[in-house]
Amino acid sequence: MRNFDQFTITQAVLERVANTPDARTRQISEALVRHLHDFIREVRPTQAEWEQGIAFLTATGHMCTGTRQEFILLSDTLGVSMLVDAINHDHQQAVTESTVLGPFYVEGPPEQPCGSDISGDLPGEPMFASGTVRTADGTPLANAIVDVWHSDEDGYYDVQHEGEGLVARARFRTDEAGHFHFWSIKPAAYPIPHDGPVGKMLQAQGRHPWRPAHVHFMIEAPGYEKLVTHVFVAGDAYLDSDAVFGVKDSLICDFAVHPAGAAPDGRVVDRPWCELTYDFRLNPVSNAASRAA
Amino acid sequence: MRNFDQFTITQAVLERVANTPDARTRQISEALVRHLHDFIREVRPTQAEWEQGIAFLTATGHMCTGTRQEFILLSDTLGVSMLVDAINHDHQQAVTESTVLGPFYVEGPPEQPCGSDISGDLPGEPMFASGTVRTADGTPLANAIVDVWHSDEDGYYDVQHEGEGLVARARFRTDEAGHFHFWSIKPAAYPIPHDGPVGKMLQAQGRHPWRPAHVHFMIEAPGYEKLVTHVFVAGDAYLDSDAVFGVKDSLICDFAVHPAGAAPDGRVVDRPWCELTYDFRLNPVSNAASRAA
Repeated sequence: MRNFDQFTITQAVLERVANTPDARTRQISEALVRHLHDFIREVRPTQAEWEQGIAFLTATGHMCTGTRQEFILLSDTLGVSMLVDAINHDHQQAVTESTVLGPFYVEGPPEQPCGSDISGDLPGEPMFASGTVRTADGTPLANAIVDVWHSDEDGYYDVQHEGEGLVARARFRTDEAGHFHFWSIKPAAYPIPHDGPVGKMLQAQGRHPWRPAHVHFMIEAPGYEKLVTHVFVAGDAYLDSDAVFGVKDSLICDFAVHPAGAAPDGRVVDRPWCELTYDFRLNPVSNAASRAA
Repeated sequence: MRNFDQFTITQAVLERVANTPDARTRQISEALVRHLHDFIREVRPTQAEWEQGIAFLTATGHMCTGTRQEFILLSDTLGVSMLVDAINHDHQQAVTESTVLGPFYVEGPPEQPCGSDISGDLPGEPMFASGTVRTADGTPLANAIVDVWHSDEDGYYDVQHEGEGLVARARFRTDEAGHFHFWSIKPAAYPIPHDGPVGKMLQAQGRHPWRPAHVHFMIEAPGYEKLVTHVFVAGDAYLDSDAVFGVKDSLICDFAVHPAGAAPDGRVVDRPWCELTYDFRLNPVSNAASRAA
């Protein structure tokens, strides 16, 4: 175990990790070493470039806080998050497509009764959002947990404003008919946070940091695979160049605009308001398990 | 640019980075995307495993401080540092072999006159270290900068002791004969810092964190490639299982032990002392440039 050259070093590291007790950890370790070494041998970094790589990863780590996840942004912008999503959710025709979680989810959002307005004091175009959670064959799912979060009209999430509380973010439960609804404001397209290392990477790659406007949904019901997805706003300028590659046609909704007046839940709105309507269909766990096998 | 599956996503990301203005950045970006996606497609991480990966990188970043470089430890223990070293220093027979920088180098160490004792108050076996810096054909190089740093007899570096000054670390310059010498204490084998994410990784992989005892040297002279290397202590128990794959036979020195008495520089030592002697031969920049072409 000495005197390695640029080819024998890979075998040496593989021999070292071959004793990993856990089989899955061993598999991941071996694959990581092979692919990482192949990458290095292909690009032949100079010592200075290696140092830049170390500095980039370090800066990315230092940028991570409780409310900023720069490594998720890196995964998202390199297409890794959508690749992992695709691997884990080979699309079944009858169920709703998934997309990236993104860096702004907050565990255990405040639970609200259906019909609540979750926009707090935020200015913006009123949005009436409603949906039904169903099985693949259309049977409504009662008591499903529906987490929602979205940007304000300037494209910022609550957690990006220091010291502010949670807003435009809540948890609902579906009723007996599998239905939920709430009020908020229409989200805007936004650049992902680009004042850190990932923003510098995008700039170096000649890429913009924008995502098309969307509302995040995370839906859970016992016996079904957790659904992590967005509903996108039709007509958005960035639908074809999402910085994180997350757009799927099936997830685009019209957000139709209605004149001032009575909304479906009886609320009377003094301004024009838009409507998000989406029927979500969940994948039974048995399907997910058989795919993984 | 929508509706990607686990195969089309890679092409989509490659198209996005294809506009990178700088050719080298484009090359590295494209290779990174291809190899990273191949790795993901091979191991097929679950969403939970992806989250563990994000958490591991984040913890690794958070462990990095001015005196602790966890990403270098990660690079070292995955064999990447030695691979980069091998790529950049295809061994020329006549010049000294290189090895990893490691995480404990401090820029601009305190310059000392030759003959100084750099061990401060550290206990340990006295070590007389001397060497000559030469060109590949044996011509001595005067006024070369020789940075040295090494562990204490417990295997710790100065920067690992909070609040302590720099010790067992210095910069010397060679005299007209290309010679330098100094006193210190014999370094010990040591585990790389393993109380962080990299330590957890090594444990999961069933690996020990130890490195065989060595003294670091970084040698610079105008017109020559910077030499980053170690001199290892012969007979060390970890020479064949260095946690960072850095050992080369040509870099092992006897550290011969001498009885109490007069040393080569006239100093009289009241205890047995050991001797590190090594002749370093530097690579002309023209060789390095022609290799890179």
